[in-house]
Amino acid sequence: MTTTKRGPYRKGIERRAEILRTAGRVFGEYGYAGASLRQIADEVGVTAALLIAHFGSKEGLLIAILKHLADEGDEAMPNDGVGIEFFTWYSPLMKFHLQRPGFIDLLLTLAAEASSPTHPAREFMVERYRLFVAKCVAQLEIAHAAGDLPGVPPERFEFEARGFIALLDGVELQWRLEPEMDLFETVTSNLEVMLTRWSGREIVLTRDPVIPEVHGA
Amino acid sequence: MTTTKRGPYRKGIERRAEILRTAGRVFGEYGYAGASLRQIADEVGVTAALLIAHFGSKEGLLIAILKHLADEGDEAMPNDGVGIEFFTWYSPLMKFHLQRPGFIDLLLTLAAEASSPTHPAREFMVERYRLFVAKCVAQLEIAHAAGDLPGVPPERFEFEARGFIALLDGVELQWRLEPEMDLFETVTSNLEVMLTRWSGREIVLTRDPVIPEVHGA
Repeated sequence: MTTTKRGPYRKGIERRAEILRTAGRVFGEYGYAGASLRQIADEVGVTAALLIAHFGSKEGLLIAILKHLADEGDEAMPNDGVGIEFFTWYSPLMKFHLQRPGFIDLLLTLAAEASSPTHPAREFMVERYRLFVAKCVAQLEIAHAAGDLPGVPPERFEFEARGFIALLDGVELQWRLEPEMDLFETVTSNLEVMLTRWSGREIVLTRDPVIPEVHGA
Repeated sequence: MTTTKRGPYRKGIERRAEILRTAGRVFGEYGYAGASLRQIADEVGVTAALLIAHFGSKEGLLIAILKHLADEGDEAMPNDGVGIEFFTWYSPLMKFHLQRPGFIDLLLTLAAEASSPTHPAREFMVERYRLFVAKCVAQLEIAHAAGDLPGVPPERFEFEARGFIALLDGVELQWRLEPEMDLFETVTSNLEVMLTRWSGREIVLTRDPVIPEVHGA
């Protein structure tokens, strides 16, 4: 049995990915309420009826986009790091994100908009942040158990996890407003200081990481 | 000559403040494109024509809101701190922000949406962040000149300033998604660690700051 996708099946997958990317860019630019299905359909070159037929609703389309882009990122650049290594991965991720400004716009816009209890992406975003905090705390626990976290007492794990996540989101927010700033170096240098403080050993991150290319993101 | 505002003049000022607060909440909830003038007018209890007559356009209304809310905050809680003291002020500010979730929603939503070059708040937000970074760097220079910043070499001032701003924005973003988290303690404890590292002396921030009350924000 072969798993190669080809012919009309593969073309369908690519077309779907293209629709989701374009729609994600429109949502990221205008916000969820501000982007109309008509506008998205026009940009993609299909009808609004076709979008509804495929994704059920505007809300269904948004959730499909979020899942697709998250999967695409995880697949292209999985984080297999454990303990302190888990966190170092976020430095090269910034280079990856430089290729996907539309995805960052979408995530930041939705994270901000989803403060509204009725926002259709609220559950997805709340869950995303909860999982991310929990994952970071779990990795801090692993580093602690390995004796690699002398700089942080366990009662501060959640605060440090939240400070780490805030660094990523906050600097990306600044970068989207001032594209001329150095996203990679700003995050990387702050991360080095943070990880050095956590681990009690000098952590130096590479300035020249190899990252995968994502097409058309 | 008296400067007391009373009668119809004072009432007009209060009415204007009320309109701007309500409109700010609607923009914060639905995003700029998603909130219609009609919707805002309905919530405030006036006509869309009156909003246009007073603020010129939807864009004019948004800029008036941003200026009003920023002025209101500066007036209620001015930051007179110099050097390291400048930064400690942001811990009690979190308690102040707990009273103004609508303002935070608006700022975060606009900061995220304004990544779009055509967003009407783009110039305002870009300028806001530029000024904030410059102000933080200037205060780091003052602390450095006073010998109060042994932990940070001058070439890292901008990175540290951006990391500090990211901490505030990023944790507020998390708080709007998970209102049960402790915004004040998360920011305060991370700020203590940051300022202790910067200054080389143990900085302890009060857990019980006195902050002004803002009505109806």
